[in-house]
Amino acid sequence: MAGKKNAGKNRRAKNQETASGDVEKVAQQVEEMKVEEDDVSKEFYGVTPLHQSQTKEGPLYTDISDLFDKKYADTAVCIRGRLHRSRAKGKLCFLVLRDRQYLLQCVLSTGEKVSKAMVKFVGNITKESIVDVYGLVKSSPVAIEGCNPDNVELHITKIFVISASSPVLPFQIEDAMRPDTAETDESFSRVNQDTRLDNRFIDLRTPTNQAIYRLEHGVVRLFMDYLDEHGFTMIQTPKILGGSSEGGANVFKFNYFNNEACLAQSPQLYKQMAIASDFGRVYTIGAVFRAEDSNTHRHLCEFVGLDLEVAFKIHYHEVVDLIAEMFVSIFKGLQTKYASEIGTVCKQYNAEPFQFLEPTLRLEFSEGIKMLKEAGWDVGEYDDLSTPAEKFLGKLVKEKYGTDFYILDKFPLAIRPFYTMPDPHNEALIKVSNSYDFFMRGEEIMSGAQRIHDPQFLTERAKHHGLDVKTIQSYIDSFRYGCPPHAGGGIGLERVTMLFLGLDNIRKVSMFPRDPKRLAP
Amino acid sequence: MAGKKNAGKNRRAKNQETASGDVEKVAQQVEEMKVEEDDVSKEFYGVTPLHQSQTKEGPLYTDISDLFDKKYADTAVCIRGRLHRSRAKGKLCFLVLRDRQYLLQCVLSTGEKVSKAMVKFVGNITKESIVDVYGLVKSSPVAIEGCNPDNVELHITKIFVISASSPVLPFQIEDAMRPDTAETDESFSRVNQDTRLDNRFIDLRTPTNQAIYRLEHGVVRLFMDYLDEHGFTMIQTPKILGGSSEGGANVFKFNYFNNEACLAQSPQLYKQMAIASDFGRVYTIGAVFRAEDSNTHRHLCEFVGLDLEVAFKIHYHEVVDLIAEMFVSIFKGLQTKYASEIGTVCKQYNAEPFQFLEPTLRLEFSEGIKMLKEAGWDVGEYDDLSTPAEKFLGKLVKEKYGTDFYILDKFPLAIRPFYTMPDPHNEALIKVSNSYDFFMRGEEIMSGAQRIHDPQFLTERAKHHGLDVKTIQSYIDSFRYGCPPHAGGGIGLERVTMLFLGLDNIRKVSMFPRDPKRLAP
Repeated sequence: MAGKKNAGKNRRAKNQETASGDVEKVAQQVEEMKVEEDDVSKEFYGVTPLHQSQTKEGPLYTDISDLFDKKYADTAVCIRGRLHRSRAKGKLCFLVLRDRQYLLQCVLSTGEKVSKAMVKFVGNITKESIVDVYGLVKSSPVAIEGCNPDNVELHITKIFVISASSPVLPFQIEDAMRPDTAETDESFSRVNQDTRLDNRFIDLRTPTNQAIYRLEHGVVRLFMDYLDEHGFTMIQTPKILGGSSEGGANVFKFNYFNNEACLAQSPQLYKQMAIASDFGRVYTIGAVFRAEDSNTHRHLCEFVGLDLEVAFKIHYHEVVDLIAEMFVSIFKGLQTKYASEIGTVCKQYNAEPFQFLEPTLRLEFSEGIKMLKEAGWDVGEYDDLSTPAEKFLGKLVKEKYGTDFYILDKFPLAIRPFYTMPDPHNEALIKVSNSYDFFMRGEEIMSGAQRIHDPQFLTERAKHHGLDVKTIQSYIDSFRYGCPPHAGGGIGLERVTMLFLGLDNIRKVSMFPRDPKRLAP
Repeated sequence: MAGKKNAGKNRRAKNQETASGDVEKVAQQVEEMKVEEDDVSKEFYGVTPLHQSQTKEGPLYTDISDLFDKKYADTAVCIRGRLHRSRAKGKLCFLVLRDRQYLLQCVLSTGEKVSKAMVKFVGNITKESIVDVYGLVKSSPVAIEGCNPDNVELHITKIFVISASSPVLPFQIEDAMRPDTAETDESFSRVNQDTRLDNRFIDLRTPTNQAIYRLEHGVVRLFMDYLDEHGFTMIQTPKILGGSSEGGANVFKFNYFNNEACLAQSPQLYKQMAIASDFGRVYTIGAVFRAEDSNTHRHLCEFVGLDLEVAFKIHYHEVVDLIAEMFVSIFKGLQTKYASEIGTVCKQYNAEPFQFLEPTLRLEFSEGIKMLKEAGWDVGEYDDLSTPAEKFLGKLVKEKYGTDFYILDKFPLAIRPFYTMPDPHNEALIKVSNSYDFFMRGEEIMSGAQRIHDPQFLTERAKHHGLDVKTIQSYIDSFRYGCPPHAGGGIGLERVTMLFLGLDNIRKVSMFPRDPKRLAP
């Protein structure tokens, strides 16, 4: 390892190729001290030169998480981690080394091979610096507060700075890690959402954020696993569309080699084309764009869509049942494979565990309206549900059926898009449709329907909705050469993650969120 | 099943809710014929009403591909498929039913329960219509030419049109399926690339296209499988960036709530931030945008990037080796799990099977230059390789080492981006860097490097490249709080698919390609 061989020399290096300018000052102080004493530790600490892959030789590294295994007791290890905090007390220095959600206490004390200069140098390493620490793993008779693992500590023999942090952090990681409940105490400082997001590459270092984004990966993975096992093909759909492909005000428009183009608000047209092309069952995962000036806890201008479309044989409930089973498979997978991540998030943001039934509860829209009315909510039978109505209905459903996840089926035709297939048994006063929304904790996470696959009927419905048929002609034409009946839906990845974990803001589950006020980082 | 119950009635239906206007004419003709004869078959054929999920009852469907199983011999089945072609010969009618790459011969002949009117109706069903065919599976003593399975046929008892195709197709599927080799014969018509792409929802129905996009799904899946097994986290990175985040002319710009924004040319900054945030090993899959006016066989304005970034401990070759192993795992997975798809594509577009070595061949850039020079190619030692030089070098490498896949390492520093880490052993005349390209069949499919993780040195290198440091300040700042050494790369999904299959144009492997001249469908 470069640091091992060159530590002494490197503390003297003054050019740009040292790991940090900030630690240089410390190195310089140490340098001055050495005039007075012949440093017995000089080979055991320092700032390594800039890591440029100088050599292929080096120590065998151990992860902090490995130390849960008792076989490491009393063995010498080398660990690369971040300096989470340090406290020097005379001849002693306590460090906490961090790697993701793991925190390890390390101890350095002056002795035969550890000089005062070494202790001073270590005490001055800036928080968040990346260091290589060599030492002996020792079991601790008492639990070490705030550490994980908390039953071992490392007795340091050597330490080198690999990449030093600036001494002034935009905020303290420990403040960003503090549980929501603790924040009611005025003596703790808080880190507000914008400060976090402005400095996302620091904020993402907290155990909670490490857990959230690993779990979000799990949602995608479990979504794909279920669909791949059920004969789906993943397709890639374009985000750049011709100017007239999608109308409305909520579209980002731009110049594309002197043509007007816009960013896709959904991959629906392309999923349906894949169905018209005999792919049978398709899904696509990708960015979806909405130029909507909504500044709410659950809207983003760019989010990740998990979209699927399925050709069915007899009834669109074949598709509804398949999607419901897929969600159950995702929820179960998260609860079994990501239990530790869920636990980590719960420690900071307290939430009720997510509950669901098997099979999934499916209510008709009219039943939902009835429940709301019976509970005294003022709602029209033709109206779409407002966000507060949705949430209230979610509460009623939870009370009555004990589930955070359910389906509302058979929405009124009038409040759904023109391409929605009407229910064929429309004797009732209110025409309904073969369409459905899926809800988690009372918030919509997927909207879907059987689509009209007949070009003539589609044209008629478009006219009925007052659309200019010319602008959607290519969409209509794609059904002219035979298309199987099909249904599908679009899921917002971030909403699923947020609501599964019971979080209160979608910006907590979007690594680099985009909303009307945020374009950076 | 709706069709079963209502077939007679439905042929008489004239409103918009029949499956097609085009087949209506046929139904009308049949109607007229029935005045003359009492049709014994009237319940056995027809056009079903528009499929609106009228009922949950219906037949048990069998797939054409199921019929490879001999247990179906002499059993009655119902199959939904597309009418690939039909030929009526007096009292006989031969149909070929298609489902993806499977083609089944079906036979209808007049008899006790099959009227002339039924045979005439069936003979008039338009090609590409979706039909439900009921019949008896019979083994065929001779192989049926052009069918797959070719040893069974279906003796039709009932047939209903589910979704009728327009009688005039933009081109014939059979022309679009014809092998490249056959096209040298002038008597066959060709379907050119633009006609295919303009009518992509028909073009995608060919067995070759069905195979290509299933295999492309496999590339993504195998990429993820390998990385998930090696401790990676999948992250989601924004496609909308602040106006100044990426410079250069090759950027699509647009208005974002009165701010200037652009579309991401790569997720690199975000991958690196995830590394600076301790995610350790990350990958991301998503759209990448290049406003480049390149009209070549291998450039797209929107493609799918498979990007990864890895914190390493000692030497960036840890990352190079990992990526190489990942590719080998993808290639092996494709060859074993997608052998039938590869076979299907090869039947139409003849290509040599893809060859690779284990471990992967890694050459230094200077060795590549030497090979080119020895073969008489005029190339400067400081120059980047031109596309023809790359291809020629690919040929030389294939001849010498017998591989279509290799790595070129240690590119000259001067021809790589400013954030590329210089090689630390730069005693030679030409400064080299810790950077690499991966090649398939002589074309670059991934470019990568160890990145500079030190803010001071990064600033210096940016200045050296003549960049305005202010415009990349936030990028530089993300390394100010400690960052582990890291390396990574970006892979073009479509290029991997194209070159693995030995295809000649990237538009063959992008479902809905975007180039300077194409924005639709």
